[in-house]
Parts: sequence; C-alpha cells; structure tokens
Amino acid sequence: METGVQRDTRGGGDRKREREVYEAAARIFYEKGYQAATVQDVADALGILKGSLYHYIDSKEDLLFELLVEAHEDVDAVLTEVAEVPGLSPLERLERYIYAQILYSAQNPHKVSVYYADLDRLQGERRELITARRAEHEAFVRELIAEAQRAGDAGEGDPVILSNCVFATVIWVYRWYRSEGPIEPEELARNCAAFAVAGVKAGIAAAPRAG
Amino acid sequence: METGVQRDTRGGGDRKREREVYEAAARIFYEKGYQAATVQDVADALGILKGSLYHYIDSKEDLLFELLVEAHEDVDAVLTEVAEVPGLSPLERLERYIYAQILYSAQNPHKVSVYYADLDRLQGERRELITARRAEHEAFVRELIAEAQRAGDAGEGDPVILSNCVFATVIWVYRWYRSEGPIEPEELARNCAAFAVAGVKAGIAAAPRAG
Repeated sequence: METGVQRDTRGGGDRKREREVYEAAARIFYEKGYQAATVQDVADALGILKGSLYHYIDSKEDLLFELLVEAHEDVDAVLTEVAEVPGLSPLERLERYIYAQILYSAQNPHKVSVYYADLDRLQGERRELITARRAEHEAFVRELIAEAQRAGDAGEGDPVILSNCVFATVIWVYRWYRSEGPIEPEELARNCAAFAVAGVKAGIAAAPRAG
Repeated sequence: METGVQRDTRGGGDRKREREVYEAAARIFYEKGYQAATVQDVADALGILKGSLYHYIDSKEDLLFELLVEAHEDVDAVLTEVAEVPGLSPLERLERYIYAQILYSAQNPHKVSVYYADLDRLQGERRELITARRAEHEAFVRELIAEAQRAGDAGEGDPVILSNCVFATVIWVYRWYRSEGPIEPEELARNCAAFAVAGVKAGIAAAPRAG
C-alpha cells in the first residue's frame, strides 16, 4: 500500500512492538529534532539493530508518518468515544472532548510535540492523509459550537474563529506544559476545558469592543 | 554593544530604512524559512547590494535578532499603552490587551510568525533577552487575572493555566489566520478577546468534570 499503513493485518505481539517503536521514535525526534535524528538513533534507543527496525519502515519519513498515524488513531478514538456518549448537550460534549484531548497531550508529550512540530515535513499524499483526519476534528468542534448556538446555549460568534480558539487552547499545551511541574494533567485539563467552554458559551456578547 | 542594539543613536531616515530592512527580512524568513534564507535573499528583496545590508548587521542571526527586538518593541508598546489607560477593571484591561495583540498579529503576519517559529534559533544572551521581555507580558496577564479573581470579577482557577490559555488564544492566530480570507482582523480580534475574557471570568466554576 502506498501510504504504508497495513498494521491491521498484524498480530498482537507485533502491534505492541510497533507501539514501542513509535514511542521511541517520538522521544528521539522530540529530543534531537526530526532533522537531526537518525534511524540509527531510534534503533539505539530500542536496543536493536538498525536492520530490525527496517522490518517496520523503509525510511525516517516512514517512521514519522507511522508515528503521526498512530497519534491520530489515539485522538480519533477520543473523538469517537466522546461523540457516542448519549444524552449530552453540545457544550457538555465539547467540554469532554477538550478535557480528553488535553489529558492525552499532557500524558503523551513527545508524540504530540512531534505531531505539531513536524507534520509539515511529510510529503504529498501522506501529509494530505493526516491533514484530512485533522479536518474531521475541526468539523466536529465547529459543528458542536454551531449546534450550541442554534439551541440557544451559546451566544453569537463566528464558529470558525471560536473553533480555532478551542484548538488554540488544546494545542498550545504541548508548548508550555510539562507534567514534571506542579500542575497535574487532570487539573490542567479541567481548567483548560472550563476556560474554552465558557469562551464558546459567552460568544461575542461578553465584552466586545475595540481597544 | 554585545547585543547589537544601538538604533536610538540613529537619525529618522536611518530608522525608517531599518524598518524596511526588518520587514523584508521577516517576509523572506517567513517565505523561505530561516534556515534556507540568506542575507543575499534579503538584499535582493530590498533591491540593494549585500554590502549595503552589512551597514545594519554582521550576520543572518543579527538580522533575526534585530527583527525580534523590533517586533517586541511593537508589542511592548501595546502593553504599555493598555497598562496606562485609566479607570479600567482588570478584565477590561485584559480584553484590550488581547484585542490589540491579536490585531497586531493579524496585521503583521510575517514578523509574528518568524517571532514564534524562529526565536529558538537565537543563541545565549540574545535569546535570554527576548525571553525576558516575553516574561513581562506573561506576568502582566497573570497579574490581571489574579487581580480580577481577588476583586470577585472572575471565578476560581489557576492563573498560570489561565494565562497560558489566554496566550494560546493570542499566539495561535499566527498559525491559522490569514488576512486574505473572509475574516477581518477587527472581527478576529473581537471574537478572540471575548472568548478569552469569558474563559478567565468563568474560571473552573463553569463546567468542570472529568471526561
């Protein structure tokens, strides 16, 4: 397959090993920077020969792509789970989504950093594939905001701008937050989710005025 | 002077020329990426000889540093102006600050993008100098949030997390917003400022709960 995604045909042991490979790659790319890092570095981190790593990938870009696909499987699973909880209002659903995504970011800092910092290094079809999956998240959040507005649960405001503000809150975590510091991941997720939901709920009715 | 900042001793014409130099450098760094761009590219964009550019700088890193210093002078001026408006509540002041910073980002996309994308390329003392100026903005916002909480104008919440959420809203604009699109800079700034102020105002009382 051209994109190289074929893990569904593999057994459970291979799947576990794959996760270890991509976690090691994420850590190495995070620490050394993608451009400076080598496949050899990743093999060294795993304590295996470079040749064994080529069982999974053909190049460093393969490793980056598979890592990003895996990160997306995780966050897509969060989206699906949150979308399927019965009986939530749009704002409650939005809050759960933000909470869960931020918790994931706080607990998987390497993968998430590489995702945001190095997506642009993918070429052509592969980059489009990841970008398309990202677009599903954007549509999900934008639609929840529009639904809340239609239901009268949220004030007026441009859903495009507001959804970008929500993603700003979610994404920026990878740049400033360190789980070794005094703030627990759950506390972080709780504060950020409350912040973003209140922002959406108020809309521009809140306090709009030129500076 | 080791940092190379000495523009105060120069005349008005030189100052204007400098702005043109840094604006051209910002555009070139933005379009080509800092690493790929050369001093020659910037000279070509200005229609001058590379030798003339060396009147202002000794290296590409000088150009980056001076450009970041200039961008900071602009956003520091916004901070000072907002801090000095008499009679505003902490949340009103915060809203003006966010509005004005986002308007600046929307209107100066190249400088702001280079600022966030390439600050890490500066070395030692110069990087510390820029980082210290950034810390003043962080303290300003954090203090306004704490003040609003003390005055009972804002709900409970961690001012460190909340100020990072405010900066997320402000900073992320450079990644997603394009002024050529359908959203006017003023509309953008108005929506984002309302979003962030409402988020701070509500605090974690809003809708905090694990997902």
